[in-house]
Amino acid sequence: MMTVDVWQKALLRPDSIALVGVSDDVGKTSGRPLRFLRAAGYGGTIFPVNPTRETVQGERSYPSLSALPEVPEHAFILTDAQRALDALEECEALGIPVATVLATGFAEAGEMGAANTERLHALISRRRLRVLGPSSIGLAQLHHGMTLTANAAFAEPDLPKGGLFVASHSGSLIGAMLSRGKRKGLGFAGLVSVGGEADLAIGDVCMAALDDPDVTGFLLFLEHMRHADRLRSFAEMAAMRGKHVAAFKLGRSDEAAELAQSHTGSLAGADAVADVFLRSCGIARVTSFEGLLEVAPLLARVPAAVLPRRGRVGVITTTGGGAAMAVDQLAGRGVDIVPAGDETRARLAELGIAPGRSRILDLTLAGTRYDVMRAAIEVFRAAPEFDLVLVCVGSSARFNPDLAVQPALDLIDTAGHPFAVFLVPDAPDATRRLAEAGVPVFEDPETCADAVATALHRQTPALPQIVPFIAPCAERTLDEAEAYGRLGTLPVADWVVLDVGAPVPELPFGYPVVVKVLDAAIPHKSDAGGVIVGLGSAQALAEAIERIQANIANRLPGHSVSRVLVQRMRAGVGEVLIGMRRDPQIGPMVVLAAGGIFTEIYRDSVMRLAPVDLEGAKAMIATLKVTQILDGARGRTKGDLDALARAVVAVSNLALCDDIIEAEINPLIVLPKGEGVAAVDALIRVRA
Amino acid sequence: MMTVDVWQKALLRPDSIALVGVSDDVGKTSGRPLRFLRAAGYGGTIFPVNPTRETVQGERSYPSLSALPEVPEHAFILTDAQRALDALEECEALGIPVATVLATGFAEAGEMGAANTERLHALISRRRLRVLGPSSIGLAQLHHGMTLTANAAFAEPDLPKGGLFVASHSGSLIGAMLSRGKRKGLGFAGLVSVGGEADLAIGDVCMAALDDPDVTGFLLFLEHMRHADRLRSFAEMAAMRGKHVAAFKLGRSDEAAELAQSHTGSLAGADAVADVFLRSCGIARVTSFEGLLEVAPLLARVPAAVLPRRGRVGVITTTGGGAAMAVDQLAGRGVDIVPAGDETRARLAELGIAPGRSRILDLTLAGTRYDVMRAAIEVFRAAPEFDLVLVCVGSSARFNPDLAVQPALDLIDTAGHPFAVFLVPDAPDATRRLAEAGVPVFEDPETCADAVATALHRQTPALPQIVPFIAPCAERTLDEAEAYGRLGTLPVADWVVLDVGAPVPELPFGYPVVVKVLDAAIPHKSDAGGVIVGLGSAQALAEAIERIQANIANRLPGHSVSRVLVQRMRAGVGEVLIGMRRDPQIGPMVVLAAGGIFTEIYRDSVMRLAPVDLEGAKAMIATLKVTQILDGARGRTKGDLDALARAVVAVSNLALCDDIIEAEINPLIVLPKGEGVAAVDALIRVRA
Repeated sequence: MMTVDVWQKALLRPDSIALVGVSDDVGKTSGRPLRFLRAAGYGGTIFPVNPTRETVQGERSYPSLSALPEVPEHAFILTDAQRALDALEECEALGIPVATVLATGFAEAGEMGAANTERLHALISRRRLRVLGPSSIGLAQLHHGMTLTANAAFAEPDLPKGGLFVASHSGSLIGAMLSRGKRKGLGFAGLVSVGGEADLAIGDVCMAALDDPDVTGFLLFLEHMRHADRLRSFAEMAAMRGKHVAAFKLGRSDEAAELAQSHTGSLAGADAVADVFLRSCGIARVTSFEGLLEVAPLLARVPAAVLPRRGRVGVITTTGGGAAMAVDQLAGRGVDIVPAGDETRARLAELGIAPGRSRILDLTLAGTRYDVMRAAIEVFRAAPEFDLVLVCVGSSARFNPDLAVQPALDLIDTAGHPFAVFLVPDAPDATRRLAEAGVPVFEDPETCADAVATALHRQTPALPQIVPFIAPCAERTLDEAEAYGRLGTLPVADWVVLDVGAPVPELPFGYPVVVKVLDAAIPHKSDAGGVIVGLGSAQALAEAIERIQANIANRLPGHSVSRVLVQRMRAGVGEVLIGMRRDPQIGPMVVLAAGGIFTEIYRDSVMRLAPVDLEGAKAMIATLKVTQILDGARGRTKGDLDALARAVVAVSNLALCDDIIEAEINPLIVLPKGEGVAAVDALIRVRA
Repeated sequence: MMTVDVWQKALLRPDSIALVGVSDDVGKTSGRPLRFLRAAGYGGTIFPVNPTRETVQGERSYPSLSALPEVPEHAFILTDAQRALDALEECEALGIPVATVLATGFAEAGEMGAANTERLHALISRRRLRVLGPSSIGLAQLHHGMTLTANAAFAEPDLPKGGLFVASHSGSLIGAMLSRGKRKGLGFAGLVSVGGEADLAIGDVCMAALDDPDVTGFLLFLEHMRHADRLRSFAEMAAMRGKHVAAFKLGRSDEAAELAQSHTGSLAGADAVADVFLRSCGIARVTSFEGLLEVAPLLARVPAAVLPRRGRVGVITTTGGGAAMAVDQLAGRGVDIVPAGDETRARLAELGIAPGRSRILDLTLAGTRYDVMRAAIEVFRAAPEFDLVLVCVGSSARFNPDLAVQPALDLIDTAGHPFAVFLVPDAPDATRRLAEAGVPVFEDPETCADAVATALHRQTPALPQIVPFIAPCAERTLDEAEAYGRLGTLPVADWVVLDVGAPVPELPFGYPVVVKVLDAAIPHKSDAGGVIVGLGSAQALAEAIERIQANIANRLPGHSVSRVLVQRMRAGVGEVLIGMRRDPQIGPMVVLAAGGIFTEIYRDSVMRLAPVDLEGAKAMIATLKVTQILDGARGRTKGDLDALARAVVAVSNLALCDDIIEAEINPLIVLPKGEGVAAVDALIRVRA
């Protein structure tokens, strides 16, 4: 097995490259990499490999990898899947450290694909060759003239060089980001299409670029969350290095999740789980595609928050309507638009700027002037009431950038709060000038608000301990009594198990009680007529047990009831659901939701990576809407939210039990303040 | 009072213009209109009016309007508010039909503003002069060289002419739309800043442009909903003429509503009410600023739906990742992404296009070719399973528009479903070529989805009869018994009024009952201890009445209870709230919401213009989430939704009673299917 630095260098900074199956036709997909590498002035050695030709695009061609005069560092394999597998095995035999595979025809391609995938996995598991792809359209390292890609977008003249490193599950999107970034005055260090991630995953590729001094930040285009563990490791390292990571993820809708799925042959991770995971990793997830590019300069200047914050934005504008659009969008994303405080207003007045009565500083009447705009930005950047200053510029951005755009250029590298500029008209020259100077600049109010809110809400990584994954295995469901036995410190309403047929004994707790059939084979107890509530006496209980026997005999022929669980009924201020489940990609999650039918109808739930600590549990409780009821809204009895927090921690800790696959307490009764909580049902699945 | 056609012509097509207070300095705001009119080649007569100069910008200047050699058709008044009022009165005296006022200093400007506003309103009420503004930055009619505006954006060379007519509450935004439209290849017939709408409102201005053959569609930038009646009249006429109307409205957030308020001196209409109103008018409300421009060509080709629809979109793409972004956004906005049906797949296969197994038609593997793309679009446009075809184009849009962009250009004027193009890379030339040919074209997935969803969801106007507004007046609250008397056909749970002190008589309905203090001065009966529920006998009722007497005496000293209302208790499958309220700008609305505390927490409510018919009421019920419970979710008892619909109609009809200002039934008990509904409380405010 080769060392990490060997494959990392061979992936991103190879001194020699073999192009296997390169075409003589520069218009063909497999002809592009040679053309692009030459156009970009790649300084290493290129070996065209094509058994059918003596020359390719005017260069000497070799019949095979084995025929090369030296062992190249990186092979880009442009053939179909079958030949690619042959070439990969040749790479391995020759000791080539890294190969990138363009071909599709693996996991997504039915029976033939399965055979290919098996052969590929066998090769990868030997760990002598690291593979990017399959279905990778290649990668580009712009500072090194290494445009090792078949993506047509790299025909671009004057490739925009800069500090951004893009890694994408979609190969075509790296092209779209290249052209869009260029238009906006943003530059790239690298762009990588990671394809099917049979070996190197997006986290590995980014990790390889982490210490590249050319790279200032990372942009990820995600279609799914496979290999989340490696993304997590990378994100933690990036945070330590102070390099920011932003992500755009497909699959908010089920329809797109399905597309991503058919596209990659993998199960798309549930979007909500991905969202929780990315936040916990300190990765800034934008919701708009343009936002992925535009957020980068902002992240470079807005430090990640340690504690959750809404963010306080001060707004300066030369156009009331334009600023109102941005404010509308920011407020809609939970950012606070903060008016200037008294001291700030006094400082503005000293400088001859009338602060007005509005929530924003509207300089329209002052006229758009360099000195006024500069002074206003300086005062706002020094004011403690803001976290960030947003400067909205109207028509002058297009016709007189010296008036309101120049102050931003002159101030970007001076001290003060971070600031960003929103240009209300179309002003491509001002956009480029600002972006090239490192000023965060936005071209529409929605993207502006997406990026600003994402940057302000980004937190430093806050990840729980890593819990080993549980591989797929045989499972069984515990019965309710067994499940209660696994709940640790979580309070359960008093209960006792009775044998059916024996007389009802004196109970160790008072009536009223509920009686439930106790049988792991009957998980849906109520549907089977196996639950009777509100029993006020031993006699009523005895009758109820008989009724349950009859119901089960009736509805589930063949089942005989041997035991029941009798439980004290508790009246609380409300009910919640707490669950622990293991996402196959992300790992264990804890879910807290409003109980009963309202869970489904209003989707009032919150999720975190498990296990959580008490503080995390309290934060979850605070974001749940039903908490208003549990906390005594409208003169109701206040519930025991402290006990609820402890319960969330207890359930989340079930993630540490390596035989518990899934657990759900539904409902948990929240009792009045000081009286705690009580589980009144539990469903636990364990390894068989 | 002048006829409509006189002022409409003078507003939009004047043969002569006076510029009052025009500056000699072309850089000053008040110098711009003359410069712009000359640059645009305005063909009518221009009269500069400036008492301090003999010439202005090299042209002869007149000392006053009265000194002009003829009466101009339109005066643009560029002075401060005081002088503007003088000039307006001079316009009136001279018989000038229309004046546009740039000055601020009216409704928004405190005490001095109030005096100015009074003088302005007196002038307007005489109806001899029609006024655009105050705070109007002017208007432009591009086909007529009439750039009668002080907006710096009109310094633009080569103003983009076309069919769009923009009317905006914000003056600066017409400039932003001009430059952004130009970049996108869209052209304008007119752009109007309506300012404070002291006289002419946005609806009047658009009505004036309605029959202009140059105008193909309208784009509105709204900050508030004042003068909604005139917008409604215009929207209905526009729908009849087949001219589409799109709107972007500020104020989704309270913060922006506040800004719009301070900006215009008016109360911002609640955004949800505005949303209902715009939909009912058949106005397509986009949620993104870019969407306002980009939706226009789509509206020209997607007819408004008569019945509500989600919309069925077929997607063709040359880039999987790019299409997935658009699909994700569309699905998130409630549009259905529909796969090709069997016949469509067969037709594709006949033409040698492998339809694949995906929900979208991904042509990536086929290679980007003119004939393939053209054939795919033609087959999709003919397929009955789609309402609209979305074509996503990758890198070729930037480098080889002949491949995948040219088919769209060649097909736009042929028969078939409407289609739109989303360009995944930055491709400004392709964008412009497509837009100039009338092809709906989008530059980012979010705007694409916003516009496509808005176009597909737009319905023909569906407005209830116009109900006269109730002017602010003295009001009083009816007591519960009086309120029940006004509910018409709405069923109320059996009730009777008892005098306190008299013995409890035999009730005309059975126990259990609830007893409530009956006193219009005690609207919050429960808080005052004035409600006792669950009384099973006459004796319990008598005791409860005494307890209520004591409670009220205790909590509201000085109040004495003389009457109570006794009501039969009904157990239903759920509770709702139905309300009728009158929005001061939009008119009467009917609201249906989930009852109880969940109303507030989950904001589960739906609103329509009142009155509604039975069909409208059923549509409201269908969109409420709690309806799942009322309709028997999870084995619950089904509620009487037909009776609920009749109840919604009955409450909405209270809008027709010209003394009822507001009514709220909370709760209305929904009884099991076939048993109806029963109001168990009602609050009605009427004119005093």
